[in-house]
Amino acid sequence: MYPTRLIEYEDASEEVRQVYDDIMATRKVDRVNNFWKALANHPVTLRRTWDSIKQVMSPGELDPLTKELIYLAVSVTNNCEYCIHSHSKAAAKLGLSAEAFGELLAVVAMANETNRLANGYQVPVD
Amino acid sequence: MYPTRLIEYEDASEEVRQVYDDIMATRKVDRVNNFWKALANHPVTLRRTWDSIKQVMSPGELDPLTKELIYLAVSVTNNCEYCIHSHSKAAAKLGLSAEAFGELLAVVAMANETNRLANGYQVPVD
Amino acid sequence: MYPTRLIEYEDASEEVRQVYDDIMATRKVDRVNNFWKALANHPVTLRRTWDSIKQVMSPGELDPLTKELIYLAVSVTNNCEYCIHSHSKAAAKLGLSAEAFGELLAVVAMANETNRLANGYQVPVD
Amino acid sequence: MYPTRLIEYEDASEEVRQVYDDIMATRKVDRVNNFWKALANHPVTLRRTWDSIKQVMSPGELDPLTKELIYLAVSVTNNCEYCIHSHSKAAAKLGLSAEAFGELLAVVAMANETNRLANGYQVPVD
Amino acid sequence: MYPTRLIEYEDASEEVRQVYDDIMATRKVDRVNNFWKALANHPVTLRRTWDSIKQVMSPGELDPLTKELIYLAVSVTNNCEYCIHSHSKAAAKLGLSAEAFGELLAVVAMANETNRLANGYQVPVD
Amino acid sequence: MYPTRLIEYEDASEEVRQVYDDIMATRKVDRVNNFWKALANHPVTLRRTWDSIKQVMSPGELDPLTKELIYLAVSVTNNCEYCIHSHSKAAAKLGLSAEAFGELLAVVAMANETNRLANGYQVPVD
Repeated sequence: MYPTRLIEYEDASEEVRQVYDDIMATRKVDRVNNFWKALANHPVTLRRTWDSIKQVMSPGELDPLTKELIYLAVSVTNNCEYCIHSHSKAAAKLGLSAEAFGELLAVVAMANETNRLANGYQVPVD
Repeated sequence: MYPTRLIEYEDASEEVRQVYDDIMATRKVDRVNNFWKALANHPVTLRRTWDSIKQVMSPGELDPLTKELIYLAVSVTNNCEYCIHSHSKAAAKLGLSAEAFGELLAVVAMANETNRLANGYQVPVD
Repeated sequence: MYPTRLIEYEDASEEVRQVYDDIMATRKVDRVNNFWKALANHPVTLRRTWDSIKQVMSPGELDPLTKELIYLAVSVTNNCEYCIHSHSKAAAKLGLSAEAFGELLAVVAMANETNRLANGYQVPVD
Repeated sequence: MYPTRLIEYEDASEEVRQVYDDIMATRKVDRVNNFWKALANHPVTLRRTWDSIKQVMSPGELDPLTKELIYLAVSVTNNCEYCIHSHSKAAAKLGLSAEAFGELLAVVAMANETNRLANGYQVPVD
Repeated sequence: MYPTRLIEYEDASEEVRQVYDDIMATRKVDRVNNFWKALANHPVTLRRTWDSIKQVMSPGELDPLTKELIYLAVSVTNNCEYCIHSHSKAAAKLGLSAEAFGELLAVVAMANETNRLANGYQVPVD
Repeated sequence: MYPTRLIEYEDASEEVRQVYDDIMATRKVDRVNNFWKALANHPVTLRRTWDSIKQVMSPGELDPLTKELIYLAVSVTNNCEYCIHSHSKAAAKLGLSAEAFGELLAVVAMANETNRLANGYQVPVD
């Protein structure tokens, strides 16, 4: 099953192309990332995941950059290399500075530390 | 070793009281949370952790609320019950609305989902 | 200590060869995977792990393919690259189709998502 | 924010009730679980999560019980207490026997063990 | 399936009793922990897990206390409440002092922190 | 943001050099690892992390090798490749034998296994 086939636009079914078109139009880019090309192996997952991401990451009370920071925090905690790269790039596009990136990683790391202190001492909820 | 002894101010050593005093002064509160009362069992860890948290969570290019959201994102991912409670309370104090909390959880959950899709398809970095 | 020495049959001790022989006979293959060649650095762990795997993965009320799917679900959740590759290969040999693989990943990802929604909302058990 | 308000049918908005109705109709039950009552605090997440679950868990090449086993494997790995309870109940309804449940846990545990042996020896992909 | 039935000695099969007897004899105690009483629901897992634990935790180049500390480090990282309790008790019996316990938790927490800094900066192996 | 710039001594600010000097003097080495060169992108995190590591890893009731083993146990559990390499090297320097390394991995793996058995059976604390 590996390496996963990455499905290019020209090789994609109509169903997949419609998702690719929507991704490119929504993000104002002219290509889709490998993530989507991999998901295209299971079109129903591609469609559902894109629709979900589009809903979840659209501006609400939290702005798009804040949402990307949260995404990054999770991805760093889980050590998802692909996701760290793609979401740090997305955050940089939205204006994340190198200094703010350093602050983000410091908070993520500290949270992972204190989560284990809370576990280790079995601290009761206040 | 359990339940962990929670060290109250009146029972604390001078070394521990100094940290408690600094926490209360910095946060403008008149008591410290159970987390700190548990760490007080190992005063050098109490001091270091507080100094680190104070540095990491102070306003920088990222504002304090954004930092709390990142903390929460990690704590939810790791399922640290104590940390989920304490950092959601801290975020609420800084103005997190119920709607924004819902958005935060949606992003955290979605990130945990797509992290596994990226793992499962072994997607190469773009 | 790295790269870990992979111990080939011809360089293996009698103790290790007996395990290799059993693996090859049980699985009807003529070579063992790198995993076993790495474990051979600690023969007692090699022997115990193989005996355990053989017991756990043998057909019971759950059939071998279902057991491989469960193995894969854990490995994708933990992002163990080696394990994702070896167990997807094992599952494919047992008949996992590309479509079923896509369904598996969709369930794994969704479970990782809803696990965090349950954490985040601290949902009480029904 | 805690304890999370669980929104009962009689207190729910029309938007939420429609999802509850669909859950009850699809599952042929006359009440919804706490998970959904908690998600109802963020109706758009409730709707999206239910639609996703309905798609992902419907029978495909993998049957519903196999999908529940995968869900359980992830939930046990992540130690999501709520999810362990709800998905083991769902699996039992679909016919999971006590013996098969024991086999499932044995596989999940063994996978978590060998994932770390693969990590620890940094075994190269075959 | 929950609460899990805890199988007491007097209700146990001969097969289970033999394992209980071995646990009590090896550990010089007159009762077994809930962990074993739960595993007894799947006797083959009970037997295999006990045999494995007995082998892995017996003194080797690493002494029993060091092995318990490693067990605890993993259990705190994974937030396994049961395991944190049982292995801290086991470590205390082997002589772990309150100070050493504090040091252990400090190392565990720091490792969880720096693991995420290494992830976040995607530091290449030296 | 990737690949992360590794800041060499000759390109480092005075603030960063002071930390590098302290690392080299404390560890009696003439170069710093990539980890520190990466953290140097955020000097305040570099300083804090080094000060914390120096405190946490210095000999106490637990000796330096035991602390490295705990570090390794966490890193293997979290699958942090960089950390596995650097802390196994540090442990080897402090005298960890190949046999003891094998024992360590066996304990780490077994703990990850039994953590999930405890989760799966939802074993109540004794």
